[in-house]
Amino acid sequence: MIVGLIGFGKVSQNLFKLIKSKDMEFITSFEGRSGETIEAIKKSGIEVLDTFEDVASASDILISATSPKSALDVALKYGKYAKGIYLDLNNISPDTTLEIDKHVSNLVDGAIIGKIDSDNPILYLSGKNSDGLLFLNDFITTKKISDNVGDAARLKLLRSAYTKTLSALLIESHQIAKTCNLEDEFFDALTLTEGNDFKEKSLSRINNTLNSSKRKSEELEEIIDYFDNNDLTMVRAALKKLNR
Amino acid sequence: MIVGLIGFGKVSQNLFKLIKSKDMEFITSFEGRSGETIEAIKKSGIEVLDTFEDVASASDILISATSPKSALDVALKYGKYAKGIYLDLNNISPDTTLEIDKHVSNLVDGAIIGKIDSDNPILYLSGKNSDGLLFLNDFITTKKISDNVGDAARLKLLRSAYTKTLSALLIESHQIAKTCNLEDEFFDALTLTEGNDFKEKSLSRINNTLNSSKRKSEELEEIIDYFDNNDLTMVRAALKKLNR
Repeated sequence: MIVGLIGFGKVSQNLFKLIKSKDMEFITSFEGRSGETIEAIKKSGIEVLDTFEDVASASDILISATSPKSALDVALKYGKYAKGIYLDLNNISPDTTLEIDKHVSNLVDGAIIGKIDSDNPILYLSGKNSDGLLFLNDFITTKKISDNVGDAARLKLLRSAYTKTLSALLIESHQIAKTCNLEDEFFDALTLTEGNDFKEKSLSRINNTLNSSKRKSEELEEIIDYFDNNDLTMVRAALKKLNR
Repeated sequence: MIVGLIGFGKVSQNLFKLIKSKDMEFITSFEGRSGETIEAIKKSGIEVLDTFEDVASASDILISATSPKSALDVALKYGKYAKGIYLDLNNISPDTTLEIDKHVSNLVDGAIIGKIDSDNPILYLSGKNSDGLLFLNDFITTKKISDNVGDAARLKLLRSAYTKTLSALLIESHQIAKTCNLEDEFFDALTLTEGNDFKEKSLSRINNTLNSSKRKSEELEEIIDYFDNNDLTMVRAALKKLNR
């Protein structure tokens, strides 16, 4: 089975490490790649074709893992050459996924939950052709959601709405606890119900959110746009909180 | 050591079970008690005095565990007879605790975190006289916060602000997930970071909150009143959410 990679960042590199086996042949191209990426590809030993058009044509599974911004461009440019499954792993909105679906046959919408380089990432898939990728479960926990392209992207957005709003709540609670001079006790008293790693996990979430609050705000805005038909009292409050 | 109990509800009954030992003698009174409570006291075998004035006078530790509404009345009525430690275990606001402190010598402010009849409740104490109660750690996990009466009540309020706001977030996220037809996947995808019991715990929180949303709203209003000097964007959103 031939797996073509468009994009050779963290996701592709780690997928390659996870999935490589004697039955799988990986291909990619240097076309338009940075020196750094070319070095990484050379080091990996993956077979290199001249163009991504060649990669797309030759692949049983074509994986697009570039960036949310370029996902649609990549699909428009190379999707038409893909004869097998086209797996989009860019962190894109459900709307972009549906747009890509108009131009690509055999699209599978993928979302990796958890860090790809952690012990236990999960690959969620949606779309009719997901069944053809369930064998990946031998290498990375792989779950099919449904036949509806867009469900994997929606799930990622749902999860993100929850975790980002939770971070806003943690920021607020932690601030009040500090004002009361009860910071340690706050974490301690919640450990009972929230788990032994509550303090460590919470402080990490608080710091991550505060250190990239502009980006998190933008992501919350996208979430609010997408789920606009719902009551978003808590998510909107989180956005307001981050914008302070 | 003589421990006097004012109030013989769930907290007192369970504390009695947890703490009883050959060095401890428990006393209480039938004064003004309901038939049901009198039966429970008879069954427990606790020594019964004529009046709570007698109980207060005879106790090394007097425990008030009645109800938030009657905590101040009980303190005003019997606090003056207490010669030992007066431990208030009613779920009262920090302001009420400070009010009680004006009328009671040797007040210790106590907050039980976790269910008293669970495996692992924690008894938090604050106030200068807390040291005299640290021996309770032999029977129930007991932690002194500080010498400041009111800190235990504040900690309970802080914890409650967090858990109630979290419940509002869970209600909102769960609702959106249901609208997307991704309810199971939502819980599944969050289990990775939120713990294996995330679904069960979340559904229990959602149901508890929805089933007593009026009371939870009132508690959130008290929390907002008390922490009013802080940025309460998330907590206020939770109140708004519950009032829908």
